[in-house]
Amino acid sequence: MTHPLRKHIEEIISLTDEEFDFVLSHFEHIKKRKHQYLIQEGEIVNKEYWVIQGCLKSYFIDDNGKEHILQFGMENWWITDYESFVKQVKSKTSIDCIEDCELLYITFENREKLTAKMHKMERFWAKKSKIGRIALQNRILSLLKNSTKEQYEQLLEQYPKLFQRVPKKMIASYLGVSRETLSRLNP
Amino acid sequence: MTHPLRKHIEEIISLTDEEFDFVLSHFEHIKKRKHQYLIQEGEIVNKEYWVIQGCLKSYFIDDNGKEHILQFGMENWWITDYESFVKQVKSKTSIDCIEDCELLYITFENREKLTAKMHKMERFWAKKSKIGRIALQNRILSLLKNSTKEQYEQLLEQYPKLFQRVPKKMIASYLGVSRETLSRLNP
Repeated sequence: MTHPLRKHIEEIISLTDEEFDFVLSHFEHIKKRKHQYLIQEGEIVNKEYWVIQGCLKSYFIDDNGKEHILQFGMENWWITDYESFVKQVKSKTSIDCIEDCELLYITFENREKLTAKMHKMERFWAKKSKIGRIALQNRILSLLKNSTKEQYEQLLEQYPKLFQRVPKKMIASYLGVSRETLSRLNP
Repeated sequence: MTHPLRKHIEEIISLTDEEFDFVLSHFEHIKKRKHQYLIQEGEIVNKEYWVIQGCLKSYFIDDNGKEHILQFGMENWWITDYESFVKQVKSKTSIDCIEDCELLYITFENREKLTAKMHKMERFWAKKSKIGRIALQNRILSLLKNSTKEQYEQLLEQYPKLFQRVPKKMIASYLGVSRETLSRLNP
């Protein structure tokens, strides 16, 4: 059976068996239980995660104690606090497991080594980063338009299975609306 | 004198004279006058721009005819509609010159060619894309917190000279507030 990470990478670039083994040797495997965290606000993050199985949320708590969800992570998604990971500054967000999770992670040093040695992997992550940037830009456009409906539809498009997997109150927290407003959007 | 683009690229990677000439041969030079546009909403964008001199805004008009500014561009900034450029779909944003502008641009095909041939340039843009992504993520955090003050401070940090260069009403349009609210933030 093809390794799920290989399948994922080969959606963008192709790898020989030796190349994939070399790529994989830069990753570690971990399991986390529901409610455990990957990243806590304030720490300096040294790992980027790739989700084999499970569901996670990246969020922050505002000054009034209200939780805002920045993004979800599910199978085949890359997740970390990118500002902390890239600039080695304190993380503004936290990441928690919403389900039991199985993940791969790569450290900052290993990612630098791998992308320096393998142009193809640089290309792969460059493409992924562009796609991530587009998703964020679209979220900003929706937030500026102040259109909860549009944000809701984008969320459905990005994560079609999300609504069967996470509590309604988390969807409401992503959209920044009450449970009641959410029910009107999702009859 | 060192070419400004070379100076900019060499903040991240180093290039020989021959390499820089090769890089530069993939770009074209253009001038635009104040109020002219680079990109109009609805077109399929084939160019990424780099600002030699001048100031631009990327924006969209909402259903009520209100303008929202997504980002500004000034010297040393890369600007385009990334969703349109990367996915070759219709642009959701427009880009106009706020001042007379002098720019370089690279087409999608030339950028693909250049990054395929030169790992270093792939690395350069990968790094730039990560930085762009972090800026967008921070804007989302501010928008979710609904903190105009924080957005204002981020804007000042990102573009310290902006306030001397663009009309106050554009700053207000970026922040999504009235001119009066802006005056309270910027005494």
